Amino acid sequence: MALARIARSSLRRSEGAIGYYASEKDILCEGVYTRKFSSSSVEDVTAGGNLSYLSSIRKVDQMSFGSRGITVTPKNQFPQVERIVEESDSEYDNPKYPSLEATKPGEKPRVVVLGTGWAACRFLKGLDTKIYDAVCISPRNHMVFTPLLASTCVGTLEFRSVTEPVGQIQSALAKDPNSYFYLASCTGIDTDKHEVYCETAGNVGLPYEPYRFKVAYDKLVIAAGAEPVTFGIKGVKEHAFFLREVYHAQEIRKKLLLNLMLSENPGISEEEKERLLHCVVIGGGPTGVEFSGELSDFIIRDVRQRYAHVKNYIRVTLIEANEILSSFDVGLRQYATKHLTKSGVRLVRGVVKEVHPKKIVLSDGSDVPYGLLVWSTGVGPSEFVKSLNLPKSLGGRIGVDEWLQVPSVEDVFALGDCAGFLEQTGRQVLPALAQVAEREGKFLVELFNKIGKQNGGKALQAKDIPLGEPFVYKHLGSMASVGRYKALVDLRQNKDDKGIALAGFVSWLVWRSAYLTRVVSWRNRFYVAVNWATTLILGRDNSRI
Amino acid sequence: MALARIARSSLRRSEGAIGYYASEKDILCEGVYTRKFSSSSVEDVTAGGNLSYLSSIRKVDQMSFGSRGITVTPKNQFPQVERIVEESDSEYDNPKYPSLEATKPGEKPRVVVLGTGWAACRFLKGLDTKIYDAVCISPRNHMVFTPLLASTCVGTLEFRSVTEPVGQIQSALAKDPNSYFYLASCTGIDTDKHEVYCETAGNVGLPYEPYRFKVAYDKLVIAAGAEPVTFGIKGVKEHAFFLREVYHAQEIRKKLLLNLMLSENPGISEEEKERLLHCVVIGGGPTGVEFSGELSDFIIRDVRQRYAHVKNYIRVTLIEANEILSSFDVGLRQYATKHLTKSGVRLVRGVVKEVHPKKIVLSDGSDVPYGLLVWSTGVGPSEFVKSLNLPKSLGGRIGVDEWLQVPSVEDVFALGDCAGFLEQTGRQVLPALAQVAEREGKFLVELFNKIGKQNGGKALQAKDIPLGEPFVYKHLGSMASVGRYKALVDLRQNKDDKGIALAGFVSWLVWRSAYLTRVVSWRNRFYVAVNWATTLILGRDNSRI
Repeated sequence: MALARIARSSLRRSEGAIGYYASEKDILCEGVYTRKFSSSSVEDVTAGGNLSYLSSIRKVDQMSFGSRGITVTPKNQFPQVERIVEESDSEYDNPKYPSLEATKPGEKPRVVVLGTGWAACRFLKGLDTKIYDAVCISPRNHMVFTPLLASTCVGTLEFRSVTEPVGQIQSALAKDPNSYFYLASCTGIDTDKHEVYCETAGNVGLPYEPYRFKVAYDKLVIAAGAEPVTFGIKGVKEHAFFLREVYHAQEIRKKLLLNLMLSENPGISEEEKERLLHCVVIGGGPTGVEFSGELSDFIIRDVRQRYAHVKNYIRVTLIEANEILSSFDVGLRQYATKHLTKSGVRLVRGVVKEVHPKKIVLSDGSDVPYGLLVWSTGVGPSEFVKSLNLPKSLGGRIGVDEWLQVPSVEDVFALGDCAGFLEQTGRQVLPALAQVAEREGKFLVELFNKIGKQNGGKALQAKDIPLGEPFVYKHLGSMASVGRYKALVDLRQNKDDKGIALAGFVSWLVWRSAYLTRVVSWRNRFYVAVNWATTLILGRDNSRI
Repeated sequence: MALARIARSSLRRSEGAIGYYASEKDILCEGVYTRKFSSSSVEDVTAGGNLSYLSSIRKVDQMSFGSRGITVTPKNQFPQVERIVEESDSEYDNPKYPSLEATKPGEKPRVVVLGTGWAACRFLKGLDTKIYDAVCISPRNHMVFTPLLASTCVGTLEFRSVTEPVGQIQSALAKDPNSYFYLASCTGIDTDKHEVYCETAGNVGLPYEPYRFKVAYDKLVIAAGAEPVTFGIKGVKEHAFFLREVYHAQEIRKKLLLNLMLSENPGISEEEKERLLHCVVIGGGPTGVEFSGELSDFIIRDVRQRYAHVKNYIRVTLIEANEILSSFDVGLRQYATKHLTKSGVRLVRGVVKEVHPKKIVLSDGSDVPYGLLVWSTGVGPSEFVKSLNLPKSLGGRIGVDEWLQVPSVEDVFALGDCAGFLEQTGRQVLPALAQVAEREGKFLVELFNKIGKQNGGKALQAKDIPLGEPFVYKHLGSMASVGRYKALVDLRQNKDDKGIALAGFVSWLVWRSAYLTRVVSWRNRFYVAVNWATTLILGRDNSRI
């Protein structure tokens, strides 16, 4: 998730803000543009971080568009307003900026949800829309069933089988007159005014770009996710693929098929073939291990048949600084190591120092040439989260109390990968897992529905309502597939526990059926089952589309 | 199909040749680069369009790589060789250029096929690989089931359900030691030397780029397809979407969903909403009509439910200069007109003068604002075909005789959209239809297998072998769906015929089942059926991935 990064406090844009959307390749291609400062009016405006001042510069009429609460400046006024706004610290404060205005007495309270990941979608799914109106803001309109994403890179599953449109998860977003989904990034929050500031992707044909607007909330739920960590290593962002979004998986698949085909060209040397077909995975967590397992499956099952000319050149290397699957039971770790090695995955202990276009340099000075590099070393706080002027937990996430509330501000909640318990709660920050996010979403939406029934849904109205039992996370176990119909299931609740730890074919069946039941919709459950069956019978599709 | 455009005769490249691949968006993004002439050696070389001269400049050793017939210049020699080659008219003539060399006596004859469309794939499917080795060269590794492409734009069908990897169609390409699929564009043909010249996409990490090589053939089959025609109208290529490839359909789908979502943003004016959600289709042939029908289906069935806030703004306009479906029976045309109008498609008779980013200007001076523009006015010869020094038919296609042979040269055949009967055959150029291409592929491969059995497969060996009956095209009828479970089936063999013409639900069933049986593989037949069933029961998926 790439919810944008710049908080209102540091909102001083100059050149094209399209960098936020580097993830959306199509938009990136279209949207490279530059905006110049028009310095003439800087003096007039920068002094005033004050809104009433701005609004007095030019008096503009409001226009109502039928939908409740939406106001906008008439079209011909925009250039003026935007220019002023451009050079102000407080651009969104201009009261004439397009906005979804605060709810009025008698109207339903509005919950604004940032994000469409596990936490956000579980929350939205359970929201009582008889009590609340919902507004969801995210740069993608669908949830991704992340545990199965690795399988899509090699064609075991199709991309659409692991995504679910948010409008299907909570149909009020699509249908209710005052609920909306906005395809936009949140760029800042004003907790005093109860407003969030948003921006859509540039150069998409809107009246001015980037198209900015603000949305008032009664309650705010921040579930904006985290970003892959690169430890500041040079070249990672430029040359490695991450594996967090569908478009990542699409790019990996395209690159893998491209390399397989290019290596067949006449005149490609042995050395070059080996490089092109060397798939390197950095990070031995569940994602790295599952991706390596899927790759080795793909090689054994499909490459040998379909790319017979180059089948002996393809290799998979998994590089991890410590142990693979460090959170799993020691027996399972050994099983995984043995099984991956047997499937042809080379396990290397090493630390990456630099990434170049065609090779990695490890900290011991050795070079690892690669054709495909997948980076999966965990996640950390996004620039957006870093920029927010809110209390932080250890590790830089948004700090929350036991009820997932952000203390010191009103009506703001945070959950999922972007949130962590504050130190004073005496609790540990929970791991960035789908399981945690989903459980938090479920807890919070039940809390919201309870508060709402007691008329606490509106802004500042929940102060005296008892919140009840705090959130308690109970780990249900970890699972990871290691390829070739084998998986690990670790049902211990913590590292020192003596729970159940399974490995092998039965675990693989457990892994598949557990995930299948967790897939959100019947449509996708059906498609995942169909994909698995056809892959088993007919092999994977390798059209490069 | 974007098989590249420059024939050897005009082969004088200077700056990045990546323009050929404008279709491949991912490559386009990566691959913008510039190459400067190093003028120092220009004088030495440009004078000599002569190969033996070139080879004497620098003597290099050949290196063999195990596979039969593949030669290459050792790696450290490449920079030199390439520089020389860069400024020569006859770069491919350098005998040390990476190449798949001519087959030797005792080896199987090699058929080189350019393209992976209907004609090429039908040919490859039927090729007797006990007799021939096959090499297929195309910038895409799959066939597209084009008649169903319009359905993928709105999610009725998935993209992968309408594509088939060429390695599945002819498994020898993937497995046989001397058959290959090369992901590359053909840039020129030397019919005297029996060689084709190829180029892979730029900046993909090969030792030098663009990576060029040559392939010797015993027989050459040109099935490189055609390109959409724009009649030189300004702005079409920049702003309109075509509908010939899977990535076109993907872009259309993304744009449609983007516009639906953006139009919900706060502050978008009525006028702007209407523009964003105005889908304009230019061209009333089967593709334009089917796409309009699918769009109106999508609007009636899905948009009303899932984009309830903006459902009243979305409109479809089909603009055609003459009559829609002009090749169909007059009764069917009237039925289609009536049905499309009833489904909400506005039919406009008009000629496009100019295309701007947000509006079209018609020749009567009127403006048509649009949010999505699909251009479907038929196809014409590609730049590659235009550049070939071969006889041409009316309309600029490669001219062939009744056996699909290109006269005046040896061992060259052309078929599908890129080929047409020469005027002297007294036959009409056949329409650019999948049906024609497939029938030609079938005819030609049977001819090849026959020649091969009589030992005529090798270069220049088929002269005395009788070719038998010439190709005769028998039109089996035309079909087009018009949306909402209605289709047209026209079984007349030509315009003046009194054959069967059906319209309505039964036709729609015929249309579906006919296409289903024509889908190439069982996998896709199964997926198409599954897609249709889930669309019927659960509606379309609208994740924007």
